[in-house]
Formats: sequence, structure tokens, C-alpha cells
Amino acid sequence: MTNTFEQAEPEETNEELERCLTAAAAAASAWGHQTPGRRADVLTAVADALDAETSALVETAAAETGLSEARLTGELKRTTVQLRMFADVLRDGSYLRVVLDRADPDFVLGPRPDLRRGLMPIGPVLVFAASNFPFAFSVAGGDTASALAAGCPVLLKAHPGHPRTSQKTADVVRMALAASGAPEGTFAMITGRQAGVRALQDPRVAAGAFTGSVSGGRALFDIAAARATPIPFYGELGSINPVVVTTGAAHERDDQIAQGFVGSFTLSAGQLCTKPGILLLPEGTILAARIAEVAEQVEPTRMLNARIVQAYQRRVNEITGVPGVKVLVKGREQAAGSGVPAYTPTLFHSGAAENLCEHPVLLEENFGPSAVIAEYGSDEELHAVLTAVPGSLTVTVQTADEPDDAERHQVTRLVALATERAGRIVFNQWPTGVAVTAAQHHSGPYPATTAVAHTSVGTAAIDRFLRPVTYQNAPDFALPPALRESNPLDLPRTLGEAGTSARW
Amino acid sequence: MTNTFEQAEPEETNEELERCLTAAAAAASAWGHQTPGRRADVLTAVADALDAETSALVETAAAETGLSEARLTGELKRTTVQLRMFADVLRDGSYLRVVLDRADPDFVLGPRPDLRRGLMPIGPVLVFAASNFPFAFSVAGGDTASALAAGCPVLLKAHPGHPRTSQKTADVVRMALAASGAPEGTFAMITGRQAGVRALQDPRVAAGAFTGSVSGGRALFDIAAARATPIPFYGELGSINPVVVTTGAAHERDDQIAQGFVGSFTLSAGQLCTKPGILLLPEGTILAARIAEVAEQVEPTRMLNARIVQAYQRRVNEITGVPGVKVLVKGREQAAGSGVPAYTPTLFHSGAAENLCEHPVLLEENFGPSAVIAEYGSDEELHAVLTAVPGSLTVTVQTADEPDDAERHQVTRLVALATERAGRIVFNQWPTGVAVTAAQHHSGPYPATTAVAHTSVGTAAIDRFLRPVTYQNAPDFALPPALRESNPLDLPRTLGEAGTSARW
Repeated sequence: MTNTFEQAEPEETNEELERCLTAAAAAASAWGHQTPGRRADVLTAVADALDAETSALVETAAAETGLSEARLTGELKRTTVQLRMFADVLRDGSYLRVVLDRADPDFVLGPRPDLRRGLMPIGPVLVFAASNFPFAFSVAGGDTASALAAGCPVLLKAHPGHPRTSQKTADVVRMALAASGAPEGTFAMITGRQAGVRALQDPRVAAGAFTGSVSGGRALFDIAAARATPIPFYGELGSINPVVVTTGAAHERDDQIAQGFVGSFTLSAGQLCTKPGILLLPEGTILAARIAEVAEQVEPTRMLNARIVQAYQRRVNEITGVPGVKVLVKGREQAAGSGVPAYTPTLFHSGAAENLCEHPVLLEENFGPSAVIAEYGSDEELHAVLTAVPGSLTVTVQTADEPDDAERHQVTRLVALATERAGRIVFNQWPTGVAVTAAQHHSGPYPATTAVAHTSVGTAAIDRFLRPVTYQNAPDFALPPALRESNPLDLPRTLGEAGTSARW
Repeated sequence: MTNTFEQAEPEETNEELERCLTAAAAAASAWGHQTPGRRADVLTAVADALDAETSALVETAAAETGLSEARLTGELKRTTVQLRMFADVLRDGSYLRVVLDRADPDFVLGPRPDLRRGLMPIGPVLVFAASNFPFAFSVAGGDTASALAAGCPVLLKAHPGHPRTSQKTADVVRMALAASGAPEGTFAMITGRQAGVRALQDPRVAAGAFTGSVSGGRALFDIAAARATPIPFYGELGSINPVVVTTGAAHERDDQIAQGFVGSFTLSAGQLCTKPGILLLPEGTILAARIAEVAEQVEPTRMLNARIVQAYQRRVNEITGVPGVKVLVKGREQAAGSGVPAYTPTLFHSGAAENLCEHPVLLEENFGPSAVIAEYGSDEELHAVLTAVPGSLTVTVQTADEPDDAERHQVTRLVALATERAGRIVFNQWPTGVAVTAAQHHSGPYPATTAVAHTSVGTAAIDRFLRPVTYQNAPDFALPPALRESNPLDLPRTLGEAGTSARW
């Protein structure tokens, strides 16, 4: 199979990579020392510039990825809203978590000096762009926005799936940064797999961020951890996103669940990290048959690129070969002018849910328009499956609208198990669609991510690129403005007053 | 050399280790689901129990470590104050960082569901105790206190340097936990290097914490990163803690600086992770000679154990052999009844500061009563040294009390460089002595620690053992109490109201 858009990935020359790394290292201090308000203005300028180029960017991305203009227009809006939200985070200032402990001669453990703690940028960040969101998780996506907001220069490793979109976006970002006064070197784009690895190994890079496959993400995580000076690597890898339907929900809303599930697992041809890959149904309902009927009606959708198609076909064949698995709906391939084919959904039935535990290959992500249905006969069987599920971005629970006491008890137990397996628990909705907001947590235990405590979506993503520094007994002139007594940046602060330790 | 106290480290049997791991995994849910207030009561009960056993614990530790009763009494007090501070953190509740975003049908990127985010315990934590603080960084030290506070069961790998102190402390902790209603398995102590490694590789362990050497800490970090499911490993390893003296300070306070520096680098026989190992003086002062005079007067102090003595002697010989290095004060060894000798300080002079850059071995930690003085002839030379210094817990700056404009400019530049190299910047005081408080940050870039964004001292240490989970569109009964609408735990919350996104 050929893909006219996914050409061989051009490699940055060593000289060009060195130039980018030197420039990023040089920019770290200047960009990091700009006030949060100044950086907010720069992020806003980048958002304005991207918005102004919407038509050209969307047209390029549509041609390269086959995604619809409506979807891409919405995604670009999401991308610029993200930049504006981080600008608001900077203007608010509480993200710096300033804590001032006053000197306390009577501290219970002996005199305590004046201590002032605040968050500082971690240094240049290497961002690996993803293929499935050519705007929101690519050149100017959430990783770039949160790193720039934190005060870190960004070295962006472009994804080869949409090279022209990447180049156009990078041009807009670079020009907007320069025009709004960001230091030279604040942002650069590089291409090439080997260049990405070399950059990750470079001592001037202080952190990595990645969205992609388990195999690719783990290889990069291992490189980051094996450095002479290890650095944090924030990878969002693969997730099976199980959905549990209670008996109450199955009886109450079978049509709605069938429509919702098929809509969710086939959205963007199933090429979403939050695609629900496993549906756990109570035994003895008609839901599986309903879902199959709905899935049969789904039109073919073009996939993103040849590499994803190959991996998808391999996984479909692998699942088809598992003992006990039946193909409820067999997907059809349709050639497309782009060279990347379109597919209708494939739906599997694994039989009893315990079959998932016996064949863990069924519990691994399958990136594309497929899902596995399994039926549980008891709460014990359901709990065994949820315990066997690898760390996931989400677990979804479909409950009755007015659950009785027995179902409440069942759901409470499910939620406790789900909380151990995932970063987001969804009720009576679907996991695809990840709101960009303060309370979002797009993360989960490995292999969903390599950093369970950090999110790559929402404003808390900025935390990944900050580190605290404490100043002890500092003369005011030597303090960063954020920690000065006069509070020139007007930041929220937590004060630890003297004389409060006697109770210990 | 023999050490009567450091016997061969007994290894836990596989059966006993398995029992502890099973119990910790079983306790994770019960302990994690207790309310913060309940856990606060339990931590307070542990603190009370340790305080009640002060005489017996201090007597045992003094015999095993040679540390003075005054020092050990203070250290035990610090240990129980830490527990009480974490109890206060739990009662306050803001550590859970609860964020509630209200459902918003008019959200600019499409309808936003109700999202509620809070922090949850990460799961069982494996703590490796340190040798140099037999209470505050050992069985019931800061790592244990912060992990228990977070709601995580603790598996404590005892340090072989003080086995009887460890056992006695563990007995007190276990009994206090049981008496105050903590679940069985909330805390267990294991011994043996291989048992520690096996525990770190066990899938039931969710995080590691460690204070010790660079070689030991890096080996464990690598094991944690190489697991099928990698886990965070919070290691505090080695630090050189450079001190810079400005010309103004050298002229103004030479006696005070000489006394302060010698007091700091010889405190606890230099066996502190914050020991200032490098002193950078302006050329042409009498400070080096003054410091040598003061150091000559220091009485011999017993070291902790034979392993540290061996490493110390090796490092002293290594530094002595570096070209250009002179021995200003040669330490004397004095045999002690314990079998572990006492030492007077050793003071080196490296000549020009640039010699430190040419011989990076001088910039590595030397655990014990020694330090290296170097003299800088220009700001450029000083900056080159600070850039070459490995990541450190602290950088200390001694400035004039009333610096002129030139010195202010010099100090501002120094502080910017220091902020890149260390987690705490100290002014006109000394880095030894680490206040336990909210604004403390006991951390730094590698090799000071393996996690530059996290502290092992102070109340922020609890952040290491928590991970966010977000609940989307959850019925109230299915939410953890911390996130319920009625706020039954009376927690501080950040609210994201609907209808505020139009500005984006």
C-alpha cells in the first residue's frame, strides 16, 4: 500500500539540530524570566495569528489527513482556545503556587529562616507531535502551549503524517512569537526520527512530551530514563478505555447505549486515544445484537495514514484468531483517492468476559474502528476483568438513571476499581471528547501514560514543566519578582506566619 | 576495619516479603479511603507513641550511631513534629486540590460536562531508609510520614546502619497504627538489599522513595524505570552544595564566614546531604587561611559506619591526587571503642576556581568532614564553575550586608545561575539545617535528586504520593466524599462556573 502523503521522513542535519538546541538553551533564561503577563500576551498573539490563518491551515490539513473541514476547523479553534486559556492561567498567577514562610525565632524545631517557594520553568522541552490531531496535539497543541506558558522554550519534533500542515503551523507560530517579542529560540520545529532521539539525549533538553503508540512512547521513555542526567518524559501512550453497562442501564436505555457506543468507538475512524475498545455487558440482553445492527450502518471512514492502517489490520487479524472470539460485524475496506483506504467498523464478541482475562491480547489498544464486546455473568467476573485491564485513560460506567440500592452498591464498588485503573471516570456519557478545562485529567496508570500524576489536556498540563525553587533569607533585590515582599506581580500567596508552631 | 553495629544485613525470606506485599496491597484501598481527618488522628497517635518512647529510642540510636543524645532527641522531635504537620495538612484539606467545573452547555468548544478532579493516593510506597538520620530519614521519617498521610501503605526497607533503632521504631509505629484503627498492612518493615530490589520490582508497589548515595540511588532508579510498568522513584542522592562568597562579604565578615563555613561542613562529621563541599572565594583575601585556622581546632567526630568511612577515605585520597590541589588541613583519625573511627576535618585548596572545571572529580560529593576551597579571579570564572557544578540541593551566596550596585548586579546574575543548578538558594546563612515547613524545597536537578519537581522535606512532600482522578457527569452517590456536592469533608475547592468561556 502506498500513501502519497506519508513520504520518507526527512532528517534534520546535525548542524541544524545543534543550532536549534543552542538557540533553545539560550532562550530559556530570557523566556523564563519574562513575567507571566508578558508571556500571556505572546500566547494570545500566537492564538490570534493561528485564528487568522484558519482557512489555509484547515485546507492543508484536510488534504493531508482526510479529516473533514468541520472537524479540523473545530480542532484549530480548540488549539487557539487552549493557548488563550493558558494565557488566563498566567494572568491569574496561582499556578506559581507561591508560599512564603516568615522567619520564626520561636519555631518549635529551632529558629526558622524566611523561606519563599515558587515554581520556575524546567528548561527547554522536546515535544513529539501526534498524528491523529494535526492541530490540537501537534505543532501548536497542548504540549507546546503548556510548555511555552510555563516559560520553557519548545523544540517540536513534527509528525511525518502531516508535514505541510506542520510546516505551515510552525511558520505562523514562529512569526507570531517574533512579532510579539519572544526571544529568538523560543520555538523551533525539527523533523526526523533520529533527530528526535538525538535531541532527547541532549543535555540541554530538560523534559520530553509525547502522544502516540505504546511501543514508540516506551522506547523514548527508556531513552529519557537512561540519560546520564535522566529527565521527566510525559508520554501518553495507549489505552483500552473499558465501558461497563449495568443491568439497570441495559434495560433502561438499550437503544441509546447502542447508538452512543457505536458513535464513540467509530468517531474519527476509532483513531482516538479515548476510543472505548471494550464493552462489558450483563449476560442475557439484546444489546450486542442492537449494537451490531447500528455498526452495520456506519459509512466507511478514511484512516489517517498507511502505518496506522497496517497496525490496525494486524490487530484485527490477531483478535480474530483468539479462541472464543466471534466477528459480529466484519469491516469493509474501501480504496480512496488519497492512497489511504477507508473502513467500516469491525465488531468482535469475546463470549464470556473471563475470556478477556485468559487472553490479555484482547485488552490491548486497537487503534482504528473496532471494539470487543464481552458479557459478564457476575460482579466477581466483572471485577476480575477490571483488575486485569491495563492502566487506561478512562473507564466509563453506564448506570440506570435512578439506580436501586443494589445497583448503587455495585456501582460504588466499580468506581473504586476504576479509580485504580484510570485517570477519568465517565458516567452515562462516552469517553471520546475530552473537555479542555481546569478539572480535566487526561492521564492514567501505565501504559495509558508514563506519568500518572500529570495530564496532557487541560490547564493543569502546565505543572509538567515547572519545578519549585526555595529562597532562604534572601535580600529582596535578589529574589525573583514573584517572591518579592512588595508582590509586584500581584500573585496569590500562601503565608506561613511566625509563632504558629507551638501546638506541635 | 570492623564495625560492631553494621552486621551482615539479614534478608527477608521470600515468604515474609510476599506476606508484606500482599498485606500492603490489601490495605491500600482501606487506608486510602479513610477520610483525611481519620488519617490525621492516626498520624497524631503515631507521633504521640514515638514521643512517649523518646528515652528508649534515643538510647538505642546513640549506641548504634555514635550521634549525641542531644542531636538524637532533637531529631526525634523533628520526626514527630513532621507527623503532626502532615496531620494538620490533612485536616486543612487543600492538599487534595479539589477543582469542580460545572456543566456548561454554552462552553465555547461545545457543551462541557460536569468534571470534578481531586487527588487520590498512588498506592503502596516502598521507602528506603537513610543511615545519617536514624529517625528523621528512617523508619518513621519524612518519606513514611508523607506517604501515610497521602493514604498510601508503606513498606519500609530498613537501613543496616541502625538495625535495633529501626526495629524499635517500627514496633512503636506498628502498635500505634493498630491501636488507632489503621488497617492491617498499612505499615511493614523489611530488611535486606535483595528484598528491597525484589519489592521495587513488584507490580503491587506504586512508587519508591530513597535517600542515600548516587550509585545506590541511580541503581534503584534504573530498576524502577525498567519495570514492565515503570513507577516514579523519588531519590535524593548526592549534592556538592557550593558556597559563593562575594568580595564585599569577604571584607565585611571574614571571621563570621570562617566560623560559619567550618561549622557547617563539619556538622555531624560532614555526613549531611546539604554539607557545603565547595567554597568559592574571591582571589586575594585572607579567608582561606582563617578557615584553615578554625578547622584545625575542630575536635574529632565519630563517623556513622565503616562503609561511609571507606568511601570517605577513598574520596579524600582521590582529591589529594588531583593536580594543583593542596591539603590546607590534614584530617586525623582517632580510633573509637565502637570500631568506627572519629576524624578531624580535612580542608583542600584547589587553587584557581577554573581547576574545578578541569577536574570535575572535585565537584562530586564527598560525604564526610572535608571541603574544597577555590578562588575566582573574575565573574566569568565564577560563572563557569557554577555552570559546571552538577545539580545540587543548595547553592549558598554570602553577600555584603549592604551591597553596592556592582555587587547587586553580580548577585542577581549569580542567583539566576544558581536557580538553574539547585532547589534552594541560601543567603548569608548555611545550607545545613533544613527547616520542615510548607515553603521548603529539599530537591534539585540530578544527581541531587531523581525528581527535580518534588521535595522530600516539608509538607509539599505529600505531593509525591498522590495522583489526580477526574469524575465526569457522576451521580453524587458514586463520587468520593471529597468531590460530593454537599462537600461533607468541608474541603477548600476551586469552582469553574458555567458561562465564562465566551471571552475565548
